[in-house]
Amino acid sequence: MASTANRFSLSLPSVGSSTLKPKAFPGFFLKFENSNPLSLRVNRVAVSVSNGGVMRSARICASAPVIDQSVSEASPRAPTIVDVDLGDRSYPIYIGSGLLDRPELLQRHVHGKRVLVVTNSTVAPLYLDKVVDALTRGNPNVSVESVILPDGEKYKNMETLMKVFDKAIESRLDRRSTFVALGGGVIGDMCGFAAAAFLRGVNFIQIPTTVMAQVDSSVGGKTGINHTLGKNLIGAFYQPQCVLIDTDTLNTLPDRELASGLAEVIKYGLIRDAEFFEWQEKHMPGLLARDPSALAYAIKRSCENKAEVVSLDEKESGLRATLNLGHTFGHAIETGFGYGQWLHGEAVAAGTVMAVDMSYRLGWIDDSIVRRVHSILQQVKLPTAPPQTMTVEMFKSVMAVDKKVADGLLRLILLKGPLGSCVFTGDYDRKALDDTLHAFCKS
Amino acid sequence: MASTANRFSLSLPSVGSSTLKPKAFPGFFLKFENSNPLSLRVNRVAVSVSNGGVMRSARICASAPVIDQSVSEASPRAPTIVDVDLGDRSYPIYIGSGLLDRPELLQRHVHGKRVLVVTNSTVAPLYLDKVVDALTRGNPNVSVESVILPDGEKYKNMETLMKVFDKAIESRLDRRSTFVALGGGVIGDMCGFAAAAFLRGVNFIQIPTTVMAQVDSSVGGKTGINHTLGKNLIGAFYQPQCVLIDTDTLNTLPDRELASGLAEVIKYGLIRDAEFFEWQEKHMPGLLARDPSALAYAIKRSCENKAEVVSLDEKESGLRATLNLGHTFGHAIETGFGYGQWLHGEAVAAGTVMAVDMSYRLGWIDDSIVRRVHSILQQVKLPTAPPQTMTVEMFKSVMAVDKKVADGLLRLILLKGPLGSCVFTGDYDRKALDDTLHAFCKS
Repeated sequence: MASTANRFSLSLPSVGSSTLKPKAFPGFFLKFENSNPLSLRVNRVAVSVSNGGVMRSARICASAPVIDQSVSEASPRAPTIVDVDLGDRSYPIYIGSGLLDRPELLQRHVHGKRVLVVTNSTVAPLYLDKVVDALTRGNPNVSVESVILPDGEKYKNMETLMKVFDKAIESRLDRRSTFVALGGGVIGDMCGFAAAAFLRGVNFIQIPTTVMAQVDSSVGGKTGINHTLGKNLIGAFYQPQCVLIDTDTLNTLPDRELASGLAEVIKYGLIRDAEFFEWQEKHMPGLLARDPSALAYAIKRSCENKAEVVSLDEKESGLRATLNLGHTFGHAIETGFGYGQWLHGEAVAAGTVMAVDMSYRLGWIDDSIVRRVHSILQQVKLPTAPPQTMTVEMFKSVMAVDKKVADGLLRLILLKGPLGSCVFTGDYDRKALDDTLHAFCKS
Repeated sequence: MASTANRFSLSLPSVGSSTLKPKAFPGFFLKFENSNPLSLRVNRVAVSVSNGGVMRSARICASAPVIDQSVSEASPRAPTIVDVDLGDRSYPIYIGSGLLDRPELLQRHVHGKRVLVVTNSTVAPLYLDKVVDALTRGNPNVSVESVILPDGEKYKNMETLMKVFDKAIESRLDRRSTFVALGGGVIGDMCGFAAAAFLRGVNFIQIPTTVMAQVDSSVGGKTGINHTLGKNLIGAFYQPQCVLIDTDTLNTLPDRELASGLAEVIKYGLIRDAEFFEWQEKHMPGLLARDPSALAYAIKRSCENKAEVVSLDEKESGLRATLNLGHTFGHAIETGFGYGQWLHGEAVAAGTVMAVDMSYRLGWIDDSIVRRVHSILQQVKLPTAPPQTMTVEMFKSVMAVDKKVADGLLRLILLKGPLGSCVFTGDYDRKALDDTLHAFCKS
């Protein structure tokens, strides 16, 4: 189906890190014209260079850093496709308007005759019928069951997960069934983990309906639930068959949820894509006003960044951890303050400010980056500090069970070098961490 | 470390099934002498031939079908090693006497500095101290925590599993930790699933202490828990770093547990290893009397059969399902009669008789096999019929949620052809299934 005419690849020999300076790898871009949006498949090549622990990447991008016309102006029926390249577990991310009205996109990824849609009480009234129709139209052999969970991070636990298993077993779903996650990050994480564990693994499809899920959580196969002592401590790496992003679903998204998702968009710019960050600085008013082409571009470019990182490091042995900028502080806020009190992206925003503060205290970034981070988060009306009830002790106790602790050492994602560069390291001055915690907590 | 001097391999071209009769593939054996038991690695090559759905295999065996002298007479410190060949997830099964007194065997597979031993209230007083010693002797950097679960199949559920997560999180175990399963099949399945899901996956080691676990459940990476509506419905395929079988642990095993494990040993003979079945017919008195060399041989040959099947079909797309002879009926007994009322192997024994009965009704085997199955199970004092309280309806309702149902069709493992041959198929006369159920149930 997919044309390979526009594909190209670039190989660079690996180079010893000790002899290179970051400036030896400036970013470079290739533009190319593509007359057929349906066959556009973006494969970006990352060259990760380790120099003093700084991760940098040179990338091939399928578009110049302006709004991608293929998304905004092509036929509304032509989805953009971003591939997640994971060998025999590769899958496409479809991005576009009106995709839920294209049954063939979903149906080509449904194996077996039984489907279980997992959604929540907020999303079900809006999109469940539409999804059931997309799954069954012209396809009478497929039967669809659904389970509607309560909405919110505080329900992302084993008790709620068991409701999915109960429904699947009562409905006599078998190994050839397909689970469909319809909702935001909580639904995607829970449905994905349920699919990973039900009968030791059935297929699943992600239909994310929030910016948070569309730009981040639905891509890359991280699934799981929370434990009362920490976020996402129980789960699986388990990849979906496809991710279907119908950008029209954002029309019903509350403003607060929109802002929360933008925290992850900003993250990609800070850790690895300075041009994208600069684009965001210019286009944030459009994003907040829900300009469709701006949103579509931000989603696509975020998915490209995510897909590239996941392809290089699926199980998070290193590079993938950088996607967690602000998340270690953020998870502590979510766990300590109470799941669901703040949205995930709100906690990540405050956590990002703390990580940036610590990076600055370590002398790893200059103050212009600190100012720009504050400025863009304030523009989105995201928090730039943790809740006042958070104490240094609360941060420390939750951060001690973070998944990035190795042999007792907490590793953090910190910015280092010019905009768009970060490190994942346990090699930092503990005083800087203490100073940051004390600067942001009253006690 | 391992010598490759004794390794050899054989490749046969694949052959179209339609032109072959089963007799075209007689079994053949190669003997070879091996002067160094430590370097003995048995790699068996299976040639699966499909002919009218009958699965047969020609095998290379490292020993003639008599008691393996390398196990019984070599130095007590020289374990037999059976490899499970799964590419980069391959691992060794160590089999021998006194292996828990050899710390280096365990310690070479422990990554990181933190270990969690998962065991139960029966096994902990017998072997926990010994295992902690083996993990820590001469290795002061490793700290060991343990969690002691209640003993029994009825505790193989989500509630008990959460106790493992609680302990792991409270102990601040990180991704570089190692879980150790010390116990029978229930402990191995639960610890393995906990390891698969904790922080999305940590390493684990199996130390099985029952015949059931040593010959079957600890090998091959099937992990999971029960749901009130069905056995093993929630879980993961997740391979251990190694399986350490210290045959001395069988000295404390109750007779009923010993017999239960032998049901799985008998299974291997019936589905794929006629010579092993014949060996069992001769040596059953020795096995029941716990003759160490007989037990060691039965364990080794069972592990070889299991390792071979798992290597060929890790995720159970076909061949591996044959290991479930008697299990679909057996799981229905365990679920319907109440988890833990009968031991797993007891239910499998009754289920095997039912599968054999159905195979005979279909005209797929002759009555000599029916008689030999009854005879060997009676010798072991295993049940040859389900509990009297089981009804046809109970069987049907539980079997409907069996993992081998595909698109609504229940597939079964049935014997077909000469001893040692079976099929995994949904293509059978429903009347035979009905007749078997009615023959074994009063209502």
